[in-house]
Amino acid sequence: MDKLTLHEDPRSGNCYKIRLTAALLGLPLERKLYDIMQGETRTAEFLAKVNANGRIPVLQAGDRFLPESNAACFYLAEGTRLVPEDRFRRADMLRWMFFEQYNHEPNIATLRFWLYFIGEANLSEPQRMQIPAKRMAGEAALELMDRHLATCDWFVGSAASLADIALYAYTHVAEAGGFALGDHAHVCAWLDRVGELPGYVPMD
Amino acid sequence: MDKLTLHEDPRSGNCYKIRLTAALLGLPLERKLYDIMQGETRTAEFLAKVNANGRIPVLQAGDRFLPESNAACFYLAEGTRLVPEDRFRRADMLRWMFFEQYNHEPNIATLRFWLYFIGEANLSEPQRMQIPAKRMAGEAALELMDRHLATCDWFVGSAASLADIALYAYTHVAEAGGFALGDHAHVCAWLDRVGELPGYVPMD
Repeated sequence: MDKLTLHEDPRSGNCYKIRLTAALLGLPLERKLYDIMQGETRTAEFLAKVNANGRIPVLQAGDRFLPESNAACFYLAEGTRLVPEDRFRRADMLRWMFFEQYNHEPNIATLRFWLYFIGEANLSEPQRMQIPAKRMAGEAALELMDRHLATCDWFVGSAASLADIALYAYTHVAEAGGFALGDHAHVCAWLDRVGELPGYVPMD
Repeated sequence: MDKLTLHEDPRSGNCYKIRLTAALLGLPLERKLYDIMQGETRTAEFLAKVNANGRIPVLQAGDRFLPESNAACFYLAEGTRLVPEDRFRRADMLRWMFFEQYNHEPNIATLRFWLYFIGEANLSEPQRMQIPAKRMAGEAALELMDRHLATCDWFVGSAASLADIALYAYTHVAEAGGFALGDHAHVCAWLDRVGELPGYVPMD
């Protein structure tokens, strides 16, 4: 595999997913740090060279650049134990990763970003008006995860996969966005299982 | 492959993606129709049997159920010409599919749903306040697509892939959400190319 460099902000759970995937697989990963609060991913150079979408993470493999956290995890892990061999299960893993980006991250990660990093007093009025809907949708995502994990140890099949890594990243820090994880016992037990995986690394 | 049934609402671009993928690959697909405006995907039976997340599309393969449109497309198309053989390109295809669900669909599809199907007068105040941000983010997504398509005929590599299908679904009906596609000449030319693919079927 080409030399791997992660363009990232260490506070981002999306970036952490890629670091965690690489760590579990023993893949060396150089890190290039940006401060999103200072607009460092919106410079002309970043937009031209790293990601025209102005976002991190971006996984660089040699001289090619791959945005989107879950796509980058897939690139690293395809063909390893973190991606199920069965075709339906492999698609089901992607199902949970799309759920994560559509139902989970825009609510749970966004409230963490707004309330913990920006601060409620600094939000715009349209942002403030979205808090109740994002709170409800984030709770619904956690509840759906909890009901699923009542019947199994891992999201897909009988072992950890990228579905678990993708969902772990922002779930394990959800309390910074005001979510009460203690209400979701199966989620808490699953968070512990992920934390015990060989090679696990914590978020910075 | 097991017998395939698509649980869908024909007005949904997310459902259409799966129909289009199956049509391009010549896969037979039974259709089971629901009216999301009547809450038909929130019944106790639907939640228990088809999708606990209360959403369509869900692709049923035999007795297994797969939610999330892009995961369902991946299940149908893995190993075919619609998924690149090269590992990096395959991940890059997923990159555009995650972009579609994160940057494109929540803006372009949501404004189509709000303005064309629900009607602006029937929106809640928090919804109405999100329109300008969704308009701007949707325009940014179309502009990013247009700049990318200025340099290539297809999103990844030299042939149509699931990235094109995923992005086509809501782009080609974006004007129903108030987006002016004429401002994006490369997007318009690409829409025409998708429409000419052998086996193409239109949205209902």
